[in-house]
Amino acid sequence: MTTRTTPDAPGPHRLDPQTGTAFELRAGQVLRVVDPMGEQVSDLTAFSRDDPREWLSSGRSIDYADTISLTAGHVLYSNRSRPMFTIVSDDVGRHDFLYTPCSPETFKIIYNHEGEHPSCFGNLAEHLGRFGIAPDAIPTTFNIFMNVSVAPDGRLRIDPPASKPGDAIELRAEMDLIVGLTACSAELSNNGSFKPIDFEIRPPREGCDLGLM
Amino acid sequence: MTTRTTPDAPGPHRLDPQTGTAFELRAGQVLRVVDPMGEQVSDLTAFSRDDPREWLSSGRSIDYADTISLTAGHVLYSNRSRPMFTIVSDDVGRHDFLYTPCSPETFKIIYNHEGEHPSCFGNLAEHLGRFGIAPDAIPTTFNIFMNVSVAPDGRLRIDPPASKPGDAIELRAEMDLIVGLTACSAELSNNGSFKPIDFEIRPPREGCDLGLM
Repeated sequence: MTTRTTPDAPGPHRLDPQTGTAFELRAGQVLRVVDPMGEQVSDLTAFSRDDPREWLSSGRSIDYADTISLTAGHVLYSNRSRPMFTIVSDDVGRHDFLYTPCSPETFKIIYNHEGEHPSCFGNLAEHLGRFGIAPDAIPTTFNIFMNVSVAPDGRLRIDPPASKPGDAIELRAEMDLIVGLTACSAELSNNGSFKPIDFEIRPPREGCDLGLM
Repeated sequence: MTTRTTPDAPGPHRLDPQTGTAFELRAGQVLRVVDPMGEQVSDLTAFSRDDPREWLSSGRSIDYADTISLTAGHVLYSNRSRPMFTIVSDDVGRHDFLYTPCSPETFKIIYNHEGEHPSCFGNLAEHLGRFGIAPDAIPTTFNIFMNVSVAPDGRLRIDPPASKPGDAIELRAEMDLIVGLTACSAELSNNGSFKPIDFEIRPPREGCDLGLM
């Protein structure tokens, strides 16, 4: 149910539908995540390569940005309040940082589905396990292209992703990272069909800041 | 800056302003958290007593409730998708599960405050440490009485708590827990002044369900 993709090369790499991977990303490198067919979510998480007890924190990131709508220019923080990523470009501007990755329990509790079902949690757990990261350590993921809105009464609504074929987001690593990435397995998040996710690792660019990427 | 409160007795206990504590709560026991003076936030987190790698998950709880506005009747889930608490009564109905506990970095990044400042993170880290729980393991807290709203564009707004003097929330433990609890130290969350938080541990009640509490 998962690919064995390990980006030894910068890519582009393809994650087949309902699969995931994990890889190292060096400080300064840029992770480009592309939705090749449109309307497909990709769950992202990260840990410090030097000390995986430092993890990507939705709460810290939302707190410091003062918004749940993170896009180009925003920084994603760790639980230690240190920058892990900067979003340097974003074609879509709709991503989610509230939901945990879909898991076997998600499909049981939300979808009333019994039996086996691929899940982002399962895919992340399998691939991050190669780096010694336990399933229990997986936090709320940054759900790229997931289209979530909050009603005035607090209720959550999931709409089809706003991403069109070829739309991308680029995140610059602000420290050496272990990254987990999926092509999401949840029906509702992807408008009912499962598509691949492409990604690429671009080298640091000297003298380039946000405006020049 | 913190009290040494450890509830050997059911209480009521008082957390002095800008302090915190940690304690065990048995399955079936009800934790009653009271805002004695009004407009005061209390950050709550929990870990399984049997295996502290299982922790209170904002993402799972929000996902399964389909709302960020958790109140009486809602279940708070662990990272393993198991119920940790059920909210059995709630006088206020406004709590937050998006923000991480205020920390020394919060006061630097958000408030531009240099030097020492009491924080919920510091108080939780100190008291949970007595149970062998590391600071890095502290997740997004359930911020009781914290009044957060999300604008249509995703921006977050913190208003004074809606809690009046004596308002309370009651949470029934659904497994044996180690609980961390604070009287919040962040100016903005508490309408600019720091007040105590009271709490009490009530025994399991035979034959009582949600409607009877």
